[in-house]
Amino acid sequence: MGKTVGSCLGFLCLLIPRTRNGLKISLKNYCESWRMNVELHNIRDFEVVPEECTDHIGRYVRSIQYQVDSERTAEECLVYVSTSCNLKKDTKDAWIFDIDDTLLSTVPFYKTILYGGKKLNETSLEEWMNKANAPALDHSLRLFNDLKSRGIQIILVSARREHLRSATIDNLVKVGYHGWTGLILRGEADELVSVQKYKSDVRKQLMSEGYRIWGIVGDQYSSIEGLPSARRAFKLPNPMYYVA
Amino acid sequence: MGKTVGSCLGFLCLLIPRTRNGLKISLKNYCESWRMNVELHNIRDFEVVPEECTDHIGRYVRSIQYQVDSERTAEECLVYVSTSCNLKKDTKDAWIFDIDDTLLSTVPFYKTILYGGKKLNETSLEEWMNKANAPALDHSLRLFNDLKSRGIQIILVSARREHLRSATIDNLVKVGYHGWTGLILRGEADELVSVQKYKSDVRKQLMSEGYRIWGIVGDQYSSIEGLPSARRAFKLPNPMYYVA
Repeated sequence: MGKTVGSCLGFLCLLIPRTRNGLKISLKNYCESWRMNVELHNIRDFEVVPEECTDHIGRYVRSIQYQVDSERTAEECLVYVSTSCNLKKDTKDAWIFDIDDTLLSTVPFYKTILYGGKKLNETSLEEWMNKANAPALDHSLRLFNDLKSRGIQIILVSARREHLRSATIDNLVKVGYHGWTGLILRGEADELVSVQKYKSDVRKQLMSEGYRIWGIVGDQYSSIEGLPSARRAFKLPNPMYYVA
Repeated sequence: MGKTVGSCLGFLCLLIPRTRNGLKISLKNYCESWRMNVELHNIRDFEVVPEECTDHIGRYVRSIQYQVDSERTAEECLVYVSTSCNLKKDTKDAWIFDIDDTLLSTVPFYKTILYGGKKLNETSLEEWMNKANAPALDHSLRLFNDLKSRGIQIILVSARREHLRSATIDNLVKVGYHGWTGLILRGEADELVSVQKYKSDVRKQLMSEGYRIWGIVGDQYSSIEGLPSARRAFKLPNPMYYVA
């Protein structure tokens, strides 16, 4: 659509932009289709949210809809655990959580860079993480506690770097998370490979230690794809950024 | 949410239903979150669309938004082929398409069963398919032709049964599809396994014949998941039904 808009004079074209195939669509249609295709994993490796969609994406991640979408994901985890997992409760039943935008929200940070519309500065993000002020995602906190109460070992696997360990623990505990079994962060060697490879290798290691990984929850496909896989993976919505 | 609504008197509760965790939401919020979690593959194996969401889902599959979402998927296929596929053009470059709700739309049929709100009667669906009147999905037809013009072999892999072969060919040709290299339908033996296993086995066979499967497009995860996988898979939206 960008091209069509670009070839028009003035704002009038924005009222009736067309797709390549001639469909008359609104900017909202366009941005919704962008977001949907990000969630379907058809759009990958994007560096920034398209400029014309930063309003739309910002509105979504601040909306009730985002909360309801995420809450539904957490509910489906519980349906699955209750109906399909034959837990042995021998301290080897495990569940993996990603941290950012899974347990803790980075929306307050992303707000400062147009909800992903500006290119990420890693240093700024790490400075923000170091303040340990990220809020919890409420539905994830409830899921975390529910799984823990069923005797499942909670293992946190994050692409955050090791030097953020104490800030990460502070932040998690401050907003209500405690009682996890493992907190795995990226060491220097892990930075040489993709996040997906790093997280897959962590699962391999956990399985070799005898863990049965019943499920993973993450907001990025790199948290849940790759082999070996968990028995089921749950994907939270996140249209603000892409981690490969 | 169902429970909350059920515990209310009259229609007033529909105005401010709440989720399990107390969020005040609209029916639209609820149905959107259902749809989003279907597309994220968090909700699986559903037999019918929730009754209270049949309006919402019906409106979506008749909407411009559905068309734009699907068109964007097709565009991402072309971006991928143009930028990331080193085609050899030796008649072994291949692309797999699913048929129903990928090349041909079953929306006219699903309209008769509340867009998935009523349980599917397989016989009725096959009778409808036998009439060979399913319309094309326009963006898929364009993609089909574009890929073909690049020298890619188009292979159609569908869970339709063999007895529908001639009606399927009639229907495809009538709406503009022609020049495919293979049309693989389910034989009797294939009905003993899941659709995902059947489609994975087809890919295995194709690879053993030397095909490089650059991509798949399908509207069901069972069309694109399972091993061996294509180099990339593209998922079209489809909230009307689930095929395992």
